[in-house]
Amino acid sequence: MRFFERLADRIERTDSVVSVGLDPDPDRIPEFLADADLPRWAFNRRIIDATHEHAACYKPNAAFYEDADGWRALRETVAYAAGKDVPVLLDAKRADIGNTTRQYAEVLDWVDAITVNPYMGRDSLQPFLDREGKGVFVLCRTSNPGGSDLQDLELDSGEPLYQRVAALADVWNADGDVGLVVGATTTEELATVRELVPEIPFLVPGVGAQGGDAEAAVEHGLAAYPHSDADVSVGLVNSSRGIIFAGEESSRPDDEATYFGAAGDAAKRLKKRLNRHR
Amino acid sequence: MRFFERLADRIERTDSVVSVGLDPDPDRIPEFLADADLPRWAFNRRIIDATHEHAACYKPNAAFYEDADGWRALRETVAYAAGKDVPVLLDAKRADIGNTTRQYAEVLDWVDAITVNPYMGRDSLQPFLDREGKGVFVLCRTSNPGGSDLQDLELDSGEPLYQRVAALADVWNADGDVGLVVGATTTEELATVRELVPEIPFLVPGVGAQGGDAEAAVEHGLAAYPHSDADVSVGLVNSSRGIIFAGEESSRPDDEATYFGAAGDAAKRLKKRLNRHR
Repeated sequence: MRFFERLADRIERTDSVVSVGLDPDPDRIPEFLADADLPRWAFNRRIIDATHEHAACYKPNAAFYEDADGWRALRETVAYAAGKDVPVLLDAKRADIGNTTRQYAEVLDWVDAITVNPYMGRDSLQPFLDREGKGVFVLCRTSNPGGSDLQDLELDSGEPLYQRVAALADVWNADGDVGLVVGATTTEELATVRELVPEIPFLVPGVGAQGGDAEAAVEHGLAAYPHSDADVSVGLVNSSRGIIFAGEESSRPDDEATYFGAAGDAAKRLKKRLNRHR
Repeated sequence: MRFFERLADRIERTDSVVSVGLDPDPDRIPEFLADADLPRWAFNRRIIDATHEHAACYKPNAAFYEDADGWRALRETVAYAAGKDVPVLLDAKRADIGNTTRQYAEVLDWVDAITVNPYMGRDSLQPFLDREGKGVFVLCRTSNPGGSDLQDLELDSGEPLYQRVAALADVWNADGDVGLVVGATTTEELATVRELVPEIPFLVPGVGAQGGDAEAAVEHGLAAYPHSDADVSVGLVNSSRGIIFAGEESSRPDDEATYFGAAGDAAKRLKKRLNRHR
């Protein structure tokens, strides 16, 4: 089964396009979990318990797992999400050359999809694209201030670089496994990319902590993915800190049930907010 | 002390601009090390023993360490290289946004320099640039076939994207800690980038297994780094498989001393070959 077919089924079943970003910043893991064997895994497990009914997907960012215990925590997290039947997209933004990028792609043995960086071109992404049934989200237009430094540069053909990347991703999308990362902070750009590639699902980060526009994210981020039988448009709108650290603002942040209950509530609220526009 | 000052001292002391790529492909680690506690660390330690006299720098590629044992092996490797007084450049090609890229930058607590990907722009690299005394090598023109997909795109200003990246890196180089990654397979492009940024040291991969031109790598890759007192031009020419797996072609690949002796010989040969052009 292709990644986006599986994702379409999940979206249909949960009535949700919410991607929950699992970014367990060590400085923000609550005190009451500090003594756990693997605090990040203990944290993520409770987040998954609290949010999985509203999660189309989990999106751990690799930056938060880059050490020995981190990779153990990540493996446990991915296995636990799989047990709840939620696909996992590793936000790694990887790409390299030759045998090195083949090595990076081995992570797709145990995660369902990955984000990749297009700067090094097609062969740097090929080992990811070659993995049957795995999703590959190519960075296109990112929502950070410096996103414009390269991505908005105008080419001699008149289009900005990020639009060329979208067109290239469409060419690279031989098997229907390619998605695009397009930030929610730039509504116009979301609309433009959607027009260029009508069938490619987007991952839209930047809704929530980054303050992006939920309506635009849904209107342009979802695509009528042609390879799926499910009766839904496919795409993901991600929130990380706005969900997983919602407990910090709860009435009793030092109480475990209250803390993680707030995360569940935040995921549910985002689901509903997005569903108003679906 | 700045990274490139330290590197200049190292180049002067070893009379070498060789960067040894530590890419311990699990499929190529020799049988006789298979039972080691951490085979990659066992392998790297012997490579360092055999090559350090000829190494200006070690360059582990993060792709080969992305699991729990891998990060342990990497930490041991970096500490061991530090014990031999050889700087370590982590080839990670990282970049992300906000708190995520700050998290990635924490690796500079224990490595001396890192490679980064410019696609997400300045703020995605800022936490790396902010680390005092650490080197940051920005991908500019890579030596793989797909390197041209984005990097050679012509901007409306008439220059290709990689030249704009070189110019941006020059702007981002407020403290003299920025280097550029420019592949050796494209002599003309090496010369062009050197002309654009006379003072920025290059990391030139692609000499050796990838067959790049050693003369061009030395002629254009090294820069008279203005912040150093050492009487050398500064830059790095990397070889990975051509050095670390040279033992596979030796007379007795199953004999440990012969196997790693071949790696030492290969590093020494590359040093001499490059020094003919320095």
